[in-house]
Amino acid sequence: MRKGRVTIPTDENFVEGTKEIAELWGADAVRDCDGTHLPKNALEIAEKVYNTYFVVRGDNAWADQHTDELQSVLLTTDYILATEESLAVDLMKGYSCDQLAVNEENPKKYWQVFDRTTGEEIFSWEYVGDGQVRVDGTIPYHEYSVNFFAVNLWDSTQMYNYITNGWNIEKHKVMEPRYEATFAHIKENMRKWCAENKNVNVVRYTTFLYHFFLVFNEKNKEKHVDWFGYLMTASPRAFDAFEKEYGYAIKAEDIISQGTYQSNFINPTKPFLDYMEFTEKYVTKTVRELVDVIHAEGKEAMMFLGDSWIGTEPYGDYFKDMQLDAVVGSVGGGVTVRMLSEIPHVKYREGRFLPYFFPDTFFEGNEENAIAELNKNWVTARRAMMRKPLDRMGFGGYLSLAAKFPKFIERAGQVCDEFRLICDAAGTAKPYSSLTVAVLNAWGKKRSWMCHMVAHELWYQQVYSYQGVYEALSGLGVDVRFISFEDVKAGIDKDIDVIINVGDEGTAFSGGEYWKDEKIVTTLRKWVAEGHGFIGVGDPTAYQKGGRCFVLADVLGVDKEKGFTLSEDKYNIEKKEHFITAEVCGEIDYGEGKKNVYALENTEVLDIVFSDRFKRNVNVGEVMLAANDYAKGRGVYIAGLPYSPQNARLLLRAMYWSCHKEEVMQRVFSSNVFTDCSYYPESGKYAVINNANEVQSTTFYNVNGEKKELTLQAGEIVWLQD
Amino acid sequence: MRKGRVTIPTDENFVEGTKEIAELWGADAVRDCDGTHLPKNALEIAEKVYNTYFVVRGDNAWADQHTDELQSVLLTTDYILATEESLAVDLMKGYSCDQLAVNEENPKKYWQVFDRTTGEEIFSWEYVGDGQVRVDGTIPYHEYSVNFFAVNLWDSTQMYNYITNGWNIEKHKVMEPRYEATFAHIKENMRKWCAENKNVNVVRYTTFLYHFFLVFNEKNKEKHVDWFGYLMTASPRAFDAFEKEYGYAIKAEDIISQGTYQSNFINPTKPFLDYMEFTEKYVTKTVRELVDVIHAEGKEAMMFLGDSWIGTEPYGDYFKDMQLDAVVGSVGGGVTVRMLSEIPHVKYREGRFLPYFFPDTFFEGNEENAIAELNKNWVTARRAMMRKPLDRMGFGGYLSLAAKFPKFIERAGQVCDEFRLICDAAGTAKPYSSLTVAVLNAWGKKRSWMCHMVAHELWYQQVYSYQGVYEALSGLGVDVRFISFEDVKAGIDKDIDVIINVGDEGTAFSGGEYWKDEKIVTTLRKWVAEGHGFIGVGDPTAYQKGGRCFVLADVLGVDKEKGFTLSEDKYNIEKKEHFITAEVCGEIDYGEGKKNVYALENTEVLDIVFSDRFKRNVNVGEVMLAANDYAKGRGVYIAGLPYSPQNARLLLRAMYWSCHKEEVMQRVFSSNVFTDCSYYPESGKYAVINNANEVQSTTFYNVNGEKKELTLQAGEIVWLQD
Repeated sequence: MRKGRVTIPTDENFVEGTKEIAELWGADAVRDCDGTHLPKNALEIAEKVYNTYFVVRGDNAWADQHTDELQSVLLTTDYILATEESLAVDLMKGYSCDQLAVNEENPKKYWQVFDRTTGEEIFSWEYVGDGQVRVDGTIPYHEYSVNFFAVNLWDSTQMYNYITNGWNIEKHKVMEPRYEATFAHIKENMRKWCAENKNVNVVRYTTFLYHFFLVFNEKNKEKHVDWFGYLMTASPRAFDAFEKEYGYAIKAEDIISQGTYQSNFINPTKPFLDYMEFTEKYVTKTVRELVDVIHAEGKEAMMFLGDSWIGTEPYGDYFKDMQLDAVVGSVGGGVTVRMLSEIPHVKYREGRFLPYFFPDTFFEGNEENAIAELNKNWVTARRAMMRKPLDRMGFGGYLSLAAKFPKFIERAGQVCDEFRLICDAAGTAKPYSSLTVAVLNAWGKKRSWMCHMVAHELWYQQVYSYQGVYEALSGLGVDVRFISFEDVKAGIDKDIDVIINVGDEGTAFSGGEYWKDEKIVTTLRKWVAEGHGFIGVGDPTAYQKGGRCFVLADVLGVDKEKGFTLSEDKYNIEKKEHFITAEVCGEIDYGEGKKNVYALENTEVLDIVFSDRFKRNVNVGEVMLAANDYAKGRGVYIAGLPYSPQNARLLLRAMYWSCHKEEVMQRVFSSNVFTDCSYYPESGKYAVINNANEVQSTTFYNVNGEKKELTLQAGEIVWLQD
Repeated sequence: MRKGRVTIPTDENFVEGTKEIAELWGADAVRDCDGTHLPKNALEIAEKVYNTYFVVRGDNAWADQHTDELQSVLLTTDYILATEESLAVDLMKGYSCDQLAVNEENPKKYWQVFDRTTGEEIFSWEYVGDGQVRVDGTIPYHEYSVNFFAVNLWDSTQMYNYITNGWNIEKHKVMEPRYEATFAHIKENMRKWCAENKNVNVVRYTTFLYHFFLVFNEKNKEKHVDWFGYLMTASPRAFDAFEKEYGYAIKAEDIISQGTYQSNFINPTKPFLDYMEFTEKYVTKTVRELVDVIHAEGKEAMMFLGDSWIGTEPYGDYFKDMQLDAVVGSVGGGVTVRMLSEIPHVKYREGRFLPYFFPDTFFEGNEENAIAELNKNWVTARRAMMRKPLDRMGFGGYLSLAAKFPKFIERAGQVCDEFRLICDAAGTAKPYSSLTVAVLNAWGKKRSWMCHMVAHELWYQQVYSYQGVYEALSGLGVDVRFISFEDVKAGIDKDIDVIINVGDEGTAFSGGEYWKDEKIVTTLRKWVAEGHGFIGVGDPTAYQKGGRCFVLADVLGVDKEKGFTLSEDKYNIEKKEHFITAEVCGEIDYGEGKKNVYALENTEVLDIVFSDRFKRNVNVGEVMLAANDYAKGRGVYIAGLPYSPQNARLLLRAMYWSCHKEEVMQRVFSSNVFTDCSYYPESGKYAVINNANEVQSTTFYNVNGEKKELTLQAGEIVWLQD
């Protein structure tokens, strides 16, 4: 039995049980959870004791005495139709009065009114009090909206839990640390807390200063949720500080951006990037003061990647300055593992696994389902851990509930052992890879593994066909990085073999207006022509221009018919066999796919869908998959790629084909698509994993291409030595 | 037995047979066809004798003596990638050398070279002869294309027939009438022909001066076909004349338009509209001289709406000046009937019905199929004729072949009788209508009933979901007109109840950039708010602007999620019962439909599709049909509407609902969706038609709303008197 790397929840009423399970699982850390309290002598149970800590929320005594020092949130109204020459706008219409109230500070300075029919800002308006704006000189049948600040009366996460679980507890107000007195108080709170919590050596921040954008509507239902949204960092104080620091005034519209709130899907503008940087610098500097306090007490600082994480940007330039010891986050699939496990500048990264030990799973008779949930979560995440493991794993909830399920306890213990084995084998060096792929979008490194997310880990019909690309990459035996269009302009890194561009037209992920930039276009064309690979998924390189929709149609070998070239005959509709599709069984799943994509003349069509209504053999057929030679390089088009074992293999083959490395694909390779293989040169170990819930046979290839037949049990991991 | 309004083909070898069938069908006109010759005494068989006439093609003796006076065609090359600082372009690459040769006249004056990566025109190029252009100073990895003139060596229709039917005949060259000598010769030909063809009293022009855009590729396969394309009117002579007349030089790119060739789907630019008008004026004036010649001989001038019809624009301002007596065109469905039957400024309009009397249909044992084709064509066209009948009908091909099928002859005779009955009943006044609908697009009246067409009457996956709207309208009991955005700006006609906007984003049919114009937007909003109806199909009013995709989202009650507002919760996903869907049986067919359309807050969702992958109850569901109250008016959204009896009824109900006229819908109405009803106040007759191939029961409502139960046989027409 081995020990370490595992965190379990505990409770003051379950000390002996905690010790037993800690022993069984080799846990070296305990934590508190919602509704539990750490035992007084927690440090006798485990080496590490985590305690949650809220920096800005829940100090209602202070908040009530300093009602002018609460946080704000930047909002906009609906578009409202004028039918006369003046218009009354009710700012709070559609917003929760429990959560928000109009921030009446100097409206003429901070708010804006726009004519959304012309796009022009309007200045003939007045705040008449009581949440009402009167706009004069409106043009009948134009629409108007008002950008304004609201006061944040209720922490978004607490409100969410309150509504979801029907809690009835005191509502946490949220303090704005930009006020000197409030920040002094926050810091003093931190000091006091340290003094009072000698039994804790890890402060688990949940989280720091500003919540991601989450507001509720007039029925207290979720109205807007963006895990990346900066709206709750914005305030009159922040705007004033920005102007002082950057020498120009940021406008509400720079963040509202026509009601899109500059989401992760919108190409960031210069003012918005400045504002992000401004916020990152402020959050970093402020949190650092708290971290210094706890470091002085000999405690570690751990950040929960969620809730009030905005402004930390773990892949940004300022994150390192907080001097955090650790990050922790919930683990959904491989993407969330990599998002956590690659965060730089911390000593360790921890993942919280499923199931959560709550009564909704841990009720009598449900033990098998609890085990199944554990296995599924583990196997999904493990693919990614083989490439870059987390440093620690953990569970949450009420340990006493889990303790009633002995088979679950046993299985979780095995998972903990397997996790430690992986960490040891993987070591500190990167696993073997013969290919480096870069995902190209407007965010690049700053939002590594954070692409195509809206609300954290929720499913959206518009994104799952793209998320599959990242999920596949998270566990494939290739090196992955994220690059921006600016990186391309600065010169593509020498070691990159393949670039992937994924997303819908006009979004930050496919790139939108970046494709107007001839430097980007020519750099990529030249780079591909010189022998590299370019893979596009969805609407890659899309920007209607020069008669084309896909700017790199010549590289990809396909373009999208938007009705402008219907009169051109399109004859390239015959499906060809190909290296990329050599292992496909049955239909390929393109998710939402794409409509109206057609192949250029010399492209190889690998998959094409014909309407069952078609009556004529030309001008029909929608290309789903295509491959194209482009001088010494190659382009590949895929209409969509939801995650599945077969699709992950398809992407792997597309990558190796596109950069002419087909011959090295079968090194450190396992033939069965339900398996993955990694090799750790440092330890000389190979790991072959079975991601399926059934026995699988596979041919394993070592680093020299030598084969060996293997049979793996459901979910099994097989280790081989060099 | 009645007589008149019917044209049949004849042949010098089938005179007696022609007489018999003419008697049976009541035919009063005979015509020649490809491969047949009129009998010398044709005027003894029929009152009217049509003979086909080619104005510019086939006079190879003249063409060979005046090789500089052939027609040109404006073309562009593919986009060609430069990898060095100069680039050689082979102009004819991808084009048929049998059809086309480079027109070497003054390339530097008429041609253009573009850097398609920047969109800029390049001047550092040279025509080096032999079809090769050398471009200097190219930027590596930019793409370039050359706009140039080719000589048209082979009439496109003849080439098409030659290739399709494997003919081996002399290739018709095409003369350019803009050369004085050539036009004098053309006119002289006309005079001579009249003198030699005293037995003909109707000149059936096939057609006049310029063919629609139809070019072939290097394998002599169709490369580009646009029934509306003006490319074959363009030539150095035309460009010179344009500059003289309009005071500015038209550029090749004004028509090439980034390789889209300014198709019917592209919003026409000012220079292109000028060029169209310039061409119309020239074609009109020139044809008029020929028409005057034949009028002087006592003959009638009939235009075939097809082949070389470009520049005639029957719904344009200049068409009337040709003083044509008649038009004739082929009849596919209801749309082609209305396209023909509403052409103004001619004495009569004739439709050529199917089947064509050719051996591919008229072979032994195929009589039932021939009858079925006749019935189908007739019933499809008849719906439209009840609203606006053609003046004449006709058939083509070899009459001797049809004569071998006595049941076919009998059925065709019945059709001819039914046609005459309809013409008599309909009279000259418009049939009863209680609603006027206008289709709004960039073309308006000028391209009435010509929307969403590419190659005439061919099926395209990208358009059938929209063509169904026009096909439905062609036979519904409402008045239909076509209006442009300029018409809207000038003020919407008082009698219009409903406006329909149909098509894909960015096309001339939905309107593209017109939706930037606040005058258009406010005029329509105000008009709807005052009590009118606005129906959108596909991507209506689409122009990404002000945070919206559908500019009139407020009127339509829906918008399209393009990835920019995913973080906004969308709760309006519950399907409601509604007047519009009251008669729907089973699933509605939206054709290609639309993705990612969602309902705004107060809209009534009438149909919504959920992904079978969805895991969460918000942010999903794609709205296919929605209805929205907008002050005193209403908006309706439909994702697509291929033609079917049920969809026609759906559209009818949507129209009446949208303008608050539900209570008058059931006047002059037949309840069964496979039937239509028209009322002719002039003659006091009602016609109820069965469009189905089976017996149908229906409830008929007269103009006062009084009901009567009817049973109609397959395809039957029942007449009732006031």
